[in-house]
Amino acid sequence: MKKRTLILKNNKYNILISKDQNEFILALKKIITTNTLFIITDRNVKKLYLKYLADLLKEQGFNIKTAIISAGETGKNIKNLSALYDKALEKNLDRKSCVISLGGGVVGDIVGFFAATYMRGIDFIQVPTTLISMTDSSIGGKTAINTNHGKNIAGTFYQPKFVWINPSFLETLPMQQVKSGLAEVIKYSIIFDKKFYYYLFNMFEKGVISSSSFDYIIYQSCLYKVKVVKKDEKETTGLRSLLNFGHTFAHALETITKYKKFLHGEALAIGMLFAAKLSSELKICSDETYQRVKNILIEANFNLKTKINCTKFLSLMKKDKKAVNGNINFVLIKDIGKATNYYVKDDIVLNVLRKFFGIMK
Amino acid sequence: MKKRTLILKNNKYNILISKDQNEFILALKKIITTNTLFIITDRNVKKLYLKYLADLLKEQGFNIKTAIISAGETGKNIKNLSALYDKALEKNLDRKSCVISLGGGVVGDIVGFFAATYMRGIDFIQVPTTLISMTDSSIGGKTAINTNHGKNIAGTFYQPKFVWINPSFLETLPMQQVKSGLAEVIKYSIIFDKKFYYYLFNMFEKGVISSSSFDYIIYQSCLYKVKVVKKDEKETTGLRSLLNFGHTFAHALETITKYKKFLHGEALAIGMLFAAKLSSELKICSDETYQRVKNILIEANFNLKTKINCTKFLSLMKKDKKAVNGNINFVLIKDIGKATNYYVKDDIVLNVLRKFFGIMK
Repeated sequence: MKKRTLILKNNKYNILISKDQNEFILALKKIITTNTLFIITDRNVKKLYLKYLADLLKEQGFNIKTAIISAGETGKNIKNLSALYDKALEKNLDRKSCVISLGGGVVGDIVGFFAATYMRGIDFIQVPTTLISMTDSSIGGKTAINTNHGKNIAGTFYQPKFVWINPSFLETLPMQQVKSGLAEVIKYSIIFDKKFYYYLFNMFEKGVISSSSFDYIIYQSCLYKVKVVKKDEKETTGLRSLLNFGHTFAHALETITKYKKFLHGEALAIGMLFAAKLSSELKICSDETYQRVKNILIEANFNLKTKINCTKFLSLMKKDKKAVNGNINFVLIKDIGKATNYYVKDDIVLNVLRKFFGIMK
Repeated sequence: MKKRTLILKNNKYNILISKDQNEFILALKKIITTNTLFIITDRNVKKLYLKYLADLLKEQGFNIKTAIISAGETGKNIKNLSALYDKALEKNLDRKSCVISLGGGVVGDIVGFFAATYMRGIDFIQVPTTLISMTDSSIGGKTAINTNHGKNIAGTFYQPKFVWINPSFLETLPMQQVKSGLAEVIKYSIIFDKKFYYYLFNMFEKGVISSSSFDYIIYQSCLYKVKVVKKDEKETTGLRSLLNFGHTFAHALETITKYKKFLHGEALAIGMLFAAKLSSELKICSDETYQRVKNILIEANFNLKTKINCTKFLSLMKKDKKAVNGNINFVLIKDIGKATNYYVKDDIVLNVLRKFFGIMK
């Protein structure tokens, strides 16, 4: 069992990394006061773990209510949020009830938004079931839904009361989803830690990821996330925004393809490559560093080929949350392990976009 | 010019009560850093004050964008919220932009919710145009939308950066709306201040409310609101919840009549009378105190007659935010000026509801 505590200005909470359900129960009982738990999951995870978790909690005497949302990024919409409000009211959830998000990043984002706003905020617990949510989205309190025209346009900062990461849930995760999660893990290495980059590179080279490797990379990723969020909870100092490396591009790519062609991590892989290209074109990093980014992504077997209308793509990127006064804030890299925030002018972005998609044809 | 400062744990903001637009401009310039202001108002207020405010701000060099929502409580819905996200994105509002809510409580609630969640929170300013929003809803950071099955079911606590109360906006307010606002003012007197009760009672008895009386009751109301919110921002200690006097009943009445029959203050007047009845039936206050509540409401010319299915009404009240574990938290009164939180069992509530509607037939 490994435990991390995220200490924030106004509260703190534990992140338990453990395959032992008894440790989860023990920790849970310490932090909640209600008897009513509302588990929200998606159609895929429902088949795998809903009964398991509900039974486990019922055995402990909890009153369990459940709701299911549609799976995938397209499910993170206002209609589903509205349905959750209705369902919660129908099931008499009150402001003392506690919500459990059981699922990946999409479920965690919309459930977090629901918890942040139902009756002006009720407690919630994250139980991530995918690699991407275990290593990134379940920690740090970013909640979100997509609107008609942009990813994560609506959201709040709302911290969970507790996070239970059970790496054994990964056993049922499809390989494509695992790979998507690895993109966020690779991201931590590129922006924060050269040593971790080489660890991951060697792991990909071997072509097999052992269970203990998963445990290690989950733990390491949580460490980075906790460290950053602790210092810059609401993305105001520029530190937390480093975690957006590759994301402005990725969000635009996901939006333009209507969340149907790429999983988040798959879009992120291409987004990181673009950010590295932009860094090297602006002479912020060497061409060698750009190649290193490319190499690890290829080694991890990401498909980096795509083609898109550059002008349209630019205007989409400008609508991202990270844009201010029409300038796009990119996270660029100086070297593997060293990232920096950088406002880049439109014409330069457009120029590099054209070169980039030229290569990617 | 009168100014109140609301000092909270993590921030503070000014409430400027002034008919002088120059004072508003001066204060505004001190607190905002952006050049882009997004004014949101409703169809009614648009005709009266949108051009005035937009021109005033344009003269100062601000870049003004606007959006209009439908008027009335039914406009405070998820569909309109979703449209605001789209509109803001279309107009390239970024996370540094600032939103101005120009209107009554409904506009303030939904705009506050929008500001709290657009790009995970952008600055917003309240410019209330109704008595109810000047004396109550523009201060204190409660934001909300109604869901399909309940009033204010979704919301956040999100404080504005600044509130400008210009009592001269009341000149165009329909009498019915003024009366609705007076219900919240009467509420302050019943729960906090016997002297203020008599001041109001005498004012109603005379039948005329002078401009200086309005200035005084707005100022007094802001005083109470600031005092309470300062001590209990998120309604956790029981102090702020005293402001919900009459509201559990009022919300149920508004919901059951689909927000079409009663303005909030009109429903609140009946709700306060019911809470007083419940207080006297439970021997928490004397029958005389109940009569006093009734007298001031009659003097203020509220229609207190209505009839409703009691069982259905009870089940609606149980879905209110204030209900916990199926018990409804009522604010009851011991005397004029003294209120207390009280959980009341269903059968007692039902019993008093029957008596109450019996009288009201």
